[in-house]
Amino acid sequence: MDNLVKEIKGGVCASQDVLASSLTAGIKESGRPDMTLIQLPVGSNSSGVFTKNLVCAAPVVICREVMQKNALRAILINSGNANACTGEKGEDDARLLCSSLASLMGCEPDNIAICSTGIIGVELPMDKMLPALDKLVLGLARDNGGPAAEAIMTTDTCPKEYAVEVDFPEGKVRIGGMAKGAGMIAPDMATMLAFLTTDANISKEIMDQILIDCVNQTFNAITIDGDTSTNDTVIIASTRSAIKIDNEESISLFDFALKKVCKELSLSILRDGEGVSKVVSINVSGANNDSDAHLVARSVSQSLLVKTAINGELPNWGRILAAAGYSGAEFDPKVFNLKIGDIGVMKRGSALNGWENALSDVLKKDEYNIEINLGEGEGTATVWTTDLSSDYVRINADYRT
Amino acid sequence: MDNLVKEIKGGVCASQDVLASSLTAGIKESGRPDMTLIQLPVGSNSSGVFTKNLVCAAPVVICREVMQKNALRAILINSGNANACTGEKGEDDARLLCSSLASLMGCEPDNIAICSTGIIGVELPMDKMLPALDKLVLGLARDNGGPAAEAIMTTDTCPKEYAVEVDFPEGKVRIGGMAKGAGMIAPDMATMLAFLTTDANISKEIMDQILIDCVNQTFNAITIDGDTSTNDTVIIASTRSAIKIDNEESISLFDFALKKVCKELSLSILRDGEGVSKVVSINVSGANNDSDAHLVARSVSQSLLVKTAINGELPNWGRILAAAGYSGAEFDPKVFNLKIGDIGVMKRGSALNGWENALSDVLKKDEYNIEINLGEGEGTATVWTTDLSSDYVRINADYRT
Repeated sequence: MDNLVKEIKGGVCASQDVLASSLTAGIKESGRPDMTLIQLPVGSNSSGVFTKNLVCAAPVVICREVMQKNALRAILINSGNANACTGEKGEDDARLLCSSLASLMGCEPDNIAICSTGIIGVELPMDKMLPALDKLVLGLARDNGGPAAEAIMTTDTCPKEYAVEVDFPEGKVRIGGMAKGAGMIAPDMATMLAFLTTDANISKEIMDQILIDCVNQTFNAITIDGDTSTNDTVIIASTRSAIKIDNEESISLFDFALKKVCKELSLSILRDGEGVSKVVSINVSGANNDSDAHLVARSVSQSLLVKTAINGELPNWGRILAAAGYSGAEFDPKVFNLKIGDIGVMKRGSALNGWENALSDVLKKDEYNIEINLGEGEGTATVWTTDLSSDYVRINADYRT
Repeated sequence: MDNLVKEIKGGVCASQDVLASSLTAGIKESGRPDMTLIQLPVGSNSSGVFTKNLVCAAPVVICREVMQKNALRAILINSGNANACTGEKGEDDARLLCSSLASLMGCEPDNIAICSTGIIGVELPMDKMLPALDKLVLGLARDNGGPAAEAIMTTDTCPKEYAVEVDFPEGKVRIGGMAKGAGMIAPDMATMLAFLTTDANISKEIMDQILIDCVNQTFNAITIDGDTSTNDTVIIASTRSAIKIDNEESISLFDFALKKVCKELSLSILRDGEGVSKVVSINVSGANNDSDAHLVARSVSQSLLVKTAINGELPNWGRILAAAGYSGAEFDPKVFNLKIGDIGVMKRGSALNGWENALSDVLKKDEYNIEINLGEGEGTATVWTTDLSSDYVRINADYRT
């Protein structure tokens, strides 16, 4: 299906009828842009996936309500302050922003999703944010995908956006998106925000299902440090401006294209992770079932000893085998197979020989695969991980979230 | 009961009738001591707790058999090579060492436990180890606890031993022990060996039970990096030379004293962990049950963001709250309470004020407590953790296990 999906420009505004606007309200001390507005046409459908952390921020509570209502007209996003652990005041502030924006836009407060990212435990600077709403609405335009992706950054070093045009027999459809990440990236979407739009006409029911599946295989399958945050959010909106996606074939192509967009955004989050110099795909196959495969992939991807070995370019297959062994998955170590890049390192539980030089070339690369075959059944899973560097420690021992 | 338990010298040889011996066989390139023998009298009882990693080393397989037989006469330990991931050859080598030692000592191979620690995936240097057995037996003596603790070290920077004398109404009893750790220290006893002896006359049944409970609260409640290894072993032997421990009161005092020995050994492993500059006790109370308390303690203790904050001496309560929130335990963040040292930082879900200066003094200490009260029920748990430092990364990105 890959030849039907073509990368295009425009980011979150690549889909028809999506407008964006962003500005500097002064939430960030750096003076960088920190507020963004995305506007969607009346009649759009929307779905969301949110942090599983019990401790979730005020805007997440509101977004969950707005998604249930399914009448999304706008997404208001600020960076620099997460509005998390701010109690009732935090929720009141978020609701006041929504209702103020709604009266400016001529809609209801529950047409507006609100998302925040940045320091936690500090109240929103409402004196700076409320006056900015008017300017945000006035600035709405079609070509603002790039500035929007920039204004949602926190410790990110570069904006993250990606969009595709998909060639259906009935016509073309766009899927666009932007994301931010940097610290605390883990399965379950740690401190991660992603905003996706499509002009496909797709029902909320179908999109809810596709989105969960897609997030599990992309945003929830990347890990830097295993921590999950209070604000993680993925929202998708369909403007319903283009063709209808409602039969098995078109749903399957749409699903493929959405996964591509989400995978690209996920990998750009990983590549830009704090102190990251390498991105490694942990591909597990041959497990008794997908769930066991996922346990192994996650255990290997989160092992500090594996991650430091990746950083040090060490051919340390023992750490990979040990992390698989304590993952909780059932397998027989005597049929365990391991490749790093395309170099066979272990076969049926025994270390192979003669790979030292070839492997050292693989380990020097910025991105490569670790292929684990448990030799048991048909279960598979993929998790993308990073190295653990001294820089990661330095950044996180200095930065006050 | 603390006044009945007095620290004494002697380490693993502090108990009556325990002899030890150690030497340099040449397994380690450094030329440091690398083989140790502990001898126990005929009629000793023994219990063991071993790694839960599916991938376990050959000596662990043998130790499990020997513990079931309960006729332990000697423990043979080597450092420098873990004899892990060495297949059938590894198990054959370990059995040959046991049978060779048995004929020198006039006992059976299944009277001998064997433990290995060091690099994995490399066969034991049998040509160096077999000739050393004779000298090990000849060197057995009462005052060799110190050299034995030194000879089991790998990347440890100092030997770890601790012993107590316990004052029972019927007479005195000794409990002595030694341990090694350094890398990969986690709950489930990562690359950790501990050897305990007592001259108390205690049945295998009672000791099995006490040991599991004690290991769960000490060796399994420390974490540096969350990785668990292929060789972890805790063995205790009772020489039955002193008084009998068989009633509720004496069992309870023995249990208390054994926990003290294991806790001291656990904390010395943590303090000597790779790149460790701080040891922090995560004390959780007020959980719905002990299992939820343990989930929270473990999640907080393994969070890289919490551990880097400890390293950087940052007052980052948000990272602690977030790690509790994704632990899987059920609690209401609105009744969450947090103290760092004895400084109240959060009460009933809200951040307190005015603690900045006092807290900064606590965070500068080498050791302190983090007290989490979930405000729900009676469940409690304690896990000891460390900071995560740039040194940890450097050491593990260079060291080839």
